[in-house]
Amino acid sequence: MRDIGDAVGLLAGSLYSHISSKEAVLLQIVETGLDRYLGALLPIVESDEPADVRLRAAVKAHVDLVANHAEESLVALHQWKFLSGENRARIEAKRHAGSDAFANILADGIESGVFKPVPNRDIAIAGMLGTLNWVPEWYSPEGPATPEEIGDQLADLLLGGLLEPRELQSEARPRARSNSSRARRR
Amino acid sequence: MRDIGDAVGLLAGSLYSHISSKEAVLLQIVETGLDRYLGALLPIVESDEPADVRLRAAVKAHVDLVANHAEESLVALHQWKFLSGENRARIEAKRHAGSDAFANILADGIESGVFKPVPNRDIAIAGMLGTLNWVPEWYSPEGPATPEEIGDQLADLLLGGLLEPRELQSEARPRARSNSSRARRR
Repeated sequence: MRDIGDAVGLLAGSLYSHISSKEAVLLQIVETGLDRYLGALLPIVESDEPADVRLRAAVKAHVDLVANHAEESLVALHQWKFLSGENRARIEAKRHAGSDAFANILADGIESGVFKPVPNRDIAIAGMLGTLNWVPEWYSPEGPATPEEIGDQLADLLLGGLLEPRELQSEARPRARSNSSRARRR
Repeated sequence: MRDIGDAVGLLAGSLYSHISSKEAVLLQIVETGLDRYLGALLPIVESDEPADVRLRAAVKAHVDLVANHAEESLVALHQWKFLSGENRARIEAKRHAGSDAFANILADGIESGVFKPVPNRDIAIAGMLGTLNWVPEWYSPEGPATPEEIGDQLADLLLGGLLEPRELQSEARPRARSNSSRARRR
């Protein structure tokens, strides 16, 4: 509180005439971030686009927000655990609304055959959100890439993976690496 | 320090006859975790397996360690920022050795044609490490999946992505499943 007081030119004690508690400050940072996030995410989930298009848009919206509000995002992503009671319950509900948004896109994509079935959908969602929530740990406004470029590349990674498509195909073509035994059979 | 003293049955002041400082405690947690991690990772990078095989093994080793040492991993992954001077420099060098291990596998895979070229390799690595470093945020030893199963599914996600292979192909062919064309040819 003393650091905050110094920053705004008030004694720490006087701050309490403006805010009710440290938890209130934390709650406001976390909830402002989450509300902005859900405001960007929910219209994407609810659009009529195919699941892969919506997933790319959701990934880019997520990266855009956490990159452009990196400090605040680190607080929102990690310090929410220090909230308690009703505050914590409300924040947990909003966090779930965010991961449910991704889960809905994944479910639609699997049902429509755009996405592969996965053994456990929660793990797929947690894996994706890890990639996205880690962005504020390394993003720098000095570059080398813009949030837009990062969003596109991470969407490529999560949608398409690293393997060359031919590695995923059942049709063999002669080449040096992993399915050389199949090539030899020709 | 008082919490640690309570836990081990010593006055906080007496702790200092056993450890030199709070930073020494933090350093030991972070460095023990990193040394164990590099001990698992480096032999995988240096093996003669193809890049996709090595990447899967590296992903699984990473998940295994952060899941089985979740509390310690959260400290090692986030609190290293509070180290200073030489301690911090040494830890940063070990952190880089870890991401360089993944970068080497990615580079080998792109050069050998197993992996697609990516616009920016650092972003690909940061994206992958995000997925893996986020595991201790959600992993539970109560399930529903073992570290082994989680490692396999996250490797599938990062290597193959979510899209059905046919969505990745430039050559459009009407078919229900990815390898029905081969089945028909038999």
